[in-house]
Amino acid sequence: MNAPLAPNAVADVARSAERAARQQQVVAVLAPLLPAHALLWHHEDTVPYECDGLTAYRQLPLCVALPETEAQVAAVLKACHALSVPVVARGAGTGLSGGAMPHALGVTLSLAKFNKIVQIDRLARTATVQCGVRNLAISEAAVPLGLYYAPDPSSQIACTIGGNVAENSGGVHCLKYGLTLHNVLRVRGYTVQGEPVEFGSEALDTPGLDLLPLIVGSEGMLAVTTEVTVKLTPKPQLARCIMASFDDVRKAGDAVAAVIAAGIIPAGLEMMDKPMTAAVEDFVHAGYDLDAAAILLCESDGTPEEVAEEIDRMLDVLSGCGATRLEVSKDEAQRLKFWSGRKNAFPASGRISPDYMCMDSTIPRKRLADILLAIAEMEKKYGLACCNVFHAGDGNLHPLILFDANDPDQLHRCELFGADILETSVAMGGTVTGEHGVGVEKLSSMCVQFAPEEREQMFAVKRAFDPMQTLNPGKVIPTLQRCAEYGKMHVKKGLLPFPELERF
Amino acid sequence: MNAPLAPNAVADVARSAERAARQQQVVAVLAPLLPAHALLWHHEDTVPYECDGLTAYRQLPLCVALPETEAQVAAVLKACHALSVPVVARGAGTGLSGGAMPHALGVTLSLAKFNKIVQIDRLARTATVQCGVRNLAISEAAVPLGLYYAPDPSSQIACTIGGNVAENSGGVHCLKYGLTLHNVLRVRGYTVQGEPVEFGSEALDTPGLDLLPLIVGSEGMLAVTTEVTVKLTPKPQLARCIMASFDDVRKAGDAVAAVIAAGIIPAGLEMMDKPMTAAVEDFVHAGYDLDAAAILLCESDGTPEEVAEEIDRMLDVLSGCGATRLEVSKDEAQRLKFWSGRKNAFPASGRISPDYMCMDSTIPRKRLADILLAIAEMEKKYGLACCNVFHAGDGNLHPLILFDANDPDQLHRCELFGADILETSVAMGGTVTGEHGVGVEKLSSMCVQFAPEEREQMFAVKRAFDPMQTLNPGKVIPTLQRCAEYGKMHVKKGLLPFPELERF
Repeated sequence: MNAPLAPNAVADVARSAERAARQQQVVAVLAPLLPAHALLWHHEDTVPYECDGLTAYRQLPLCVALPETEAQVAAVLKACHALSVPVVARGAGTGLSGGAMPHALGVTLSLAKFNKIVQIDRLARTATVQCGVRNLAISEAAVPLGLYYAPDPSSQIACTIGGNVAENSGGVHCLKYGLTLHNVLRVRGYTVQGEPVEFGSEALDTPGLDLLPLIVGSEGMLAVTTEVTVKLTPKPQLARCIMASFDDVRKAGDAVAAVIAAGIIPAGLEMMDKPMTAAVEDFVHAGYDLDAAAILLCESDGTPEEVAEEIDRMLDVLSGCGATRLEVSKDEAQRLKFWSGRKNAFPASGRISPDYMCMDSTIPRKRLADILLAIAEMEKKYGLACCNVFHAGDGNLHPLILFDANDPDQLHRCELFGADILETSVAMGGTVTGEHGVGVEKLSSMCVQFAPEEREQMFAVKRAFDPMQTLNPGKVIPTLQRCAEYGKMHVKKGLLPFPELERF
Repeated sequence: MNAPLAPNAVADVARSAERAARQQQVVAVLAPLLPAHALLWHHEDTVPYECDGLTAYRQLPLCVALPETEAQVAAVLKACHALSVPVVARGAGTGLSGGAMPHALGVTLSLAKFNKIVQIDRLARTATVQCGVRNLAISEAAVPLGLYYAPDPSSQIACTIGGNVAENSGGVHCLKYGLTLHNVLRVRGYTVQGEPVEFGSEALDTPGLDLLPLIVGSEGMLAVTTEVTVKLTPKPQLARCIMASFDDVRKAGDAVAAVIAAGIIPAGLEMMDKPMTAAVEDFVHAGYDLDAAAILLCESDGTPEEVAEEIDRMLDVLSGCGATRLEVSKDEAQRLKFWSGRKNAFPASGRISPDYMCMDSTIPRKRLADILLAIAEMEKKYGLACCNVFHAGDGNLHPLILFDANDPDQLHRCELFGADILETSVAMGGTVTGEHGVGVEKLSSMCVQFAPEEREQMFAVKRAFDPMQTLNPGKVIPTLQRCAEYGKMHVKKGLLPFPELERF
């Protein structure tokens, strides 16, 4: 006779049996709706879908549906709705906050096969594409017309426009050209009930309640996007970049604010601190000034006349703010070299530390120097180093905390360090995420950002689209209970007082 | 003994008595919450509030509350909520679609006293102002910093920023500088329950569901705005304007699309047809070409170098599209003279016809010539003349139908003409309102624009903010019943078939 199972193991077996039964039921319902190759449920087939770019959290879905037509999307959604099965839509899976992480009792709806460019309209200067078209593929298709799609997240080779809509993606050039929100005209898709729905229009404004900007950035919680119409932007004739050195981070931060206050809107305005330039220069030899406490990259694009005039004005402002060295790219090769360092900041960090954690928060532009100095204090407090790279013009920080994940104490200190950065950002009037979304990663941070009434208002809007809450459930908006637990955890760990937490 | 009242009169008396009793009750509850001079309910005091800029519809409210502090706003909202009394917020009352028309059994909440500029932040390039501050007053306050608030509705001397937020106002320059939506960072206010609420932030993006763009343009249905933070824009160094003549409206329409397709984003791009220029020239002598079938005004602003380069490019494109005459403003006086005609289009129409009805619809830019030709056909069909003035760059039409309101048949034909323009705009992929809002004026047109499921989705979002539907009720979103009646009326009048109406 076998020994009896421990109580926990009994519960596990029961859960596992329940899950298997549910899987059998859902697969039986979906199988007649899809071609045989378009429904995956065997362990080895679903493993590639267990996480997105946030690999720290993994979960197998009940099954993965890969519809090829809009009718199949509608049919899958209707069937799941009838069974009250959660549905998680997925693009390329490049998201960094776990927005496409599967639900243990849900269906992952991959839209990878919706990869056609429907129409490019030269006169209206728009592109209509299926949701699974890659960000960069839109620009490539528009090359013959001298146009491109402006938002350029660093994952643009791989990420899809449907995912960009879900996350309201930005990029290096969004200071001048806006986020996804500012470059999308219309979204077509399906409600959680499987009904067709359209938001926005090609016209100037939408009468009544304009639901399009609500859909953009809603992280797959309100509807499933299948087709997107985007604005195309004329390719600038020329771009040049200034590299400016400062001997003090406060001066560099103030220079960013001064460029903007002078009425200039650069095509890009990025900042790196000394530890970051050191790591990068050793890796890609971009020609960075290793003596500088911080460097700025300031780009201008447009006609040659505009660029010449704007570069001159920026040089004046940067000198006035105490830049110790100023270098303007002489040609396209040198401009790309300047940027190669910025674009390799993440892998460069990987070379100097066993692990790093990339944060994503925002602050009002004028607080740049303050947050940098606060992070320097935190390095001492938590005993860990941090490299800083910023979309400075937008006030969007990407601090990279260096640590060794094999040392549990370092991991713990890194988590506290990260939470401290996010909460300090909020205290300075910023937000807990700039462009990576909330997903599952930032759920607890949302407790710091928003009061209970504000979160309840978001839930109310969520229910207005998805009354049963089966579309990407458990993400983005934390429950009252979760926030209460997060508050207690903070008290226990001695991280309080944060003024925001007194709300609970 | 008096003769018995007729049944209708009995009902009227009963309604009137019910209203008087409700008025007494509401005034009794609100009086202790406000200074004596801040609550109006006598007939002569409430008459000035019976309509907004849409004077065709008038209704006295139960009373008018003029709170002076946020605490008073909250108290009035709480009290009205407890009594289930409708509340209609009101700014300067310049709206053209009746969005601020009172509710017969409701309270009009005038925010006229919230007229303080709270802060102008030079480094962040923002202004924080109370909701009752006039649009132009923001720009005037920013003059010392060389900045201004870009959206410029033609009512900008009088209209308030709170009203601009409610209507998502545009203006002549919104093609380049965006609508209110693109220039507002944060809105503070109160829910219908009287709880404080804040949407957006000064940071790049808002985590979770971004409710700010939903509030902008929601026509006072979701929350009451008390404070707004807006972006300020650097004042351009120079502006110049091209006046271009065409001997054919199709060529003029195509030229608008060609300017945009060439990658130019003019600061303004306006179009007037021959009847319009004739009416205007006779009135203000702006120097318009009276032989032209249509003229375009194309403005460029920026640094002198940018303006020179952009004007040259626009001249090339306009010549290539067959412009018969091109004139560039030589100095600021001539530029303002060019614009004086455009800005006086409405009063000029009033001089040549007893009455005119101004429509407001949008179409995709490339359909400009098509809608102009369709309107020319409608002039014959309805036997009425129409002058056309367009925010052409945005595809926003303002046809002015000329008629005599004292002739019931002309009035009736004018209404049919107007409905035909709106529905043809929708059929061409446009919308029933560009910048004037839906209010009460366009309620029926919303039946044409949106399917029942789309309207139900808007109601669901409305209920997520206002479950009892007491905040500006009966506006913007038509009920199913209203649309059914509108559909029947259309059939009766022989206006069908419109493909959109087959939905009902």
